[in-house]
Amino acid sequence: MSRDPNRRPGWSAGLDIGGTKVLGVLLDGGGEVRHTVRVPTRPGASGVVGTAEEVVRRLCDEAGLGVDDLVGVGAGVPGLVDPATGTLSHAVNLGIHERELELGGMLGARLGGVRVTVENDLNVAAVGAARVLGLSGDLAFLALGTGVAAGLLLGGELRRGRRGAAGEIGHLPYRPGGPACPCGQRGCLELYASGAALDVAWPPRNGRPAAADLFAAAAEGDPLAVEVRNGFADAVAAAVRLLVLTCDVEHVVLGGGVADVGEPLLRAVAERSHGQADDSPFLRSLAVPERLRLVPRDQPVAPIGAALAARARVAGGPRTVVV
Amino acid sequence: MSRDPNRRPGWSAGLDIGGTKVLGVLLDGGGEVRHTVRVPTRPGASGVVGTAEEVVRRLCDEAGLGVDDLVGVGAGVPGLVDPATGTLSHAVNLGIHERELELGGMLGARLGGVRVTVENDLNVAAVGAARVLGLSGDLAFLALGTGVAAGLLLGGELRRGRRGAAGEIGHLPYRPGGPACPCGQRGCLELYASGAALDVAWPPRNGRPAAADLFAAAAEGDPLAVEVRNGFADAVAAAVRLLVLTCDVEHVVLGGGVADVGEPLLRAVAERSHGQADDSPFLRSLAVPERLRLVPRDQPVAPIGAALAARARVAGGPRTVVV
Repeated sequence: MSRDPNRRPGWSAGLDIGGTKVLGVLLDGGGEVRHTVRVPTRPGASGVVGTAEEVVRRLCDEAGLGVDDLVGVGAGVPGLVDPATGTLSHAVNLGIHERELELGGMLGARLGGVRVTVENDLNVAAVGAARVLGLSGDLAFLALGTGVAAGLLLGGELRRGRRGAAGEIGHLPYRPGGPACPCGQRGCLELYASGAALDVAWPPRNGRPAAADLFAAAAEGDPLAVEVRNGFADAVAAAVRLLVLTCDVEHVVLGGGVADVGEPLLRAVAERSHGQADDSPFLRSLAVPERLRLVPRDQPVAPIGAALAARARVAGGPRTVVV
Repeated sequence: MSRDPNRRPGWSAGLDIGGTKVLGVLLDGGGEVRHTVRVPTRPGASGVVGTAEEVVRRLCDEAGLGVDDLVGVGAGVPGLVDPATGTLSHAVNLGIHERELELGGMLGARLGGVRVTVENDLNVAAVGAARVLGLSGDLAFLALGTGVAAGLLLGGELRRGRRGAAGEIGHLPYRPGGPACPCGQRGCLELYASGAALDVAWPPRNGRPAAADLFAAAAEGDPLAVEVRNGFADAVAAAVRLLVLTCDVEHVVLGGGVADVGEPLLRAVAERSHGQADDSPFLRSLAVPERLRLVPRDQPVAPIGAALAARARVAGGPRTVVV
């Protein structure tokens, strides 16, 4: 293992820590992915920290690096994060029942003192999407998964908000007085624009995900599938309009599990977004559909963004994330 | 007139250029308002520029300053602004029918070369409100006037967005399928949460503004007034929730013409905001009502913010507005 800091300048590791797996990438000094490692997540606080450590060590091993050759490690996690301290809370998906986990400090200590940057997973996905798609300008990463929420990259910085609620658009009303949402409100956007909503509206069959099955059936002209797809795309287009009329982001990247559908998703949402502006010169002037992008399926944007955030933090202090 | 730049260091002038009047303030180096001038707006491009020039010159005369003693002049205007060039477009309220007005350049030239910073009026109101109310942290200035829109101050910087659409929440749907909005969509928030909406729901009588009359009648127990007031406050509370669940601003300052109602407006909106979270632990955890503030009636936040923006721009470059 090299201990020469000049041999591999600027290398960093990024992790996407999820409930089922930890996906890690190793970026070289130019920001290119050089190695990828995936390990099932062991539950609980020590399991999560241990899995993360294992991924970082395996990435370094594959590159012939020592951990202390890294300029930093970034970790994207579901839940509320205090980026200043690397503390994670409300991470029930990770099987963490403690109120808080000092993830940054614990992982850094296990890795011999390397600096660990912890961020919300949607935020690092926004950073990674900007890099992978080569997009400059303000960007929202709109995750269509179990829930609906956005990571926001504004003015080159991550928008975290006062209590980590920035981008929590899934719990804004879409159909006032609609069905009850688990959050306690009614008619939330999440009940219409999420992957979980599709599972209800188009129960999975044929052994493939609801979204893939729905879009395939709609493409074949099944009238019910067309109706369900269009209703879903309307709700996603409403989410996009919401991001534009609040933050005026230049790009909205569709991501999350539903984005595995690929181009047909992008086309359906763009079409409904055009339709929403049919009668509104004001909305047309904002060119909402032209702002849509699709996350690439072959590039793990969240761990890439985590690695970039770690590197930028080392270079620019805790607030600055330069993509 | 003094020409000694050290005699009054850091003085700046700020203008709020509206369709009926130009309101100007002169700030001393400590950011305190030292003089105020109000002049009816003369219509058209040369009228607007001439009125603005007159206000700046009168402010300087009152203080015994020369215009070239100012570190800068800031102008808040309704319409789309390119802050880099000081160019204003879509300013129909000012009687400007040219496609664009080089307001910054023209006013600067008339004032002997002083630097003029042009910003959207809601953005400078956000800056001014932060200063006047002594608020640090991210802030939205929610203007409840003819329309509904917000000026956003995030991370110490104005959020302008790609096409000046940041904060244009008045044209998000509040009642899907509701009545037609002049923007071409249906059921927009602006039809429920604006001063114009109150004029329709509670036609002015007794010679006073609809909002004042409505809130007075509701306070006296008029059942219809209570119903109209609560419906209005519900819509405003929805706007506040929208700002929190997208940008997670720490403060939402209620401003615009309707804010002349004062504390009863703040109480009504806070009460409806509490009610919206009654069944939602998630929403309660975000403490939305606690983020509400009321713009002070005795301090002109827009011209104060314009003057501060001008000063910060001189000190910190075009992007930085430090409050």
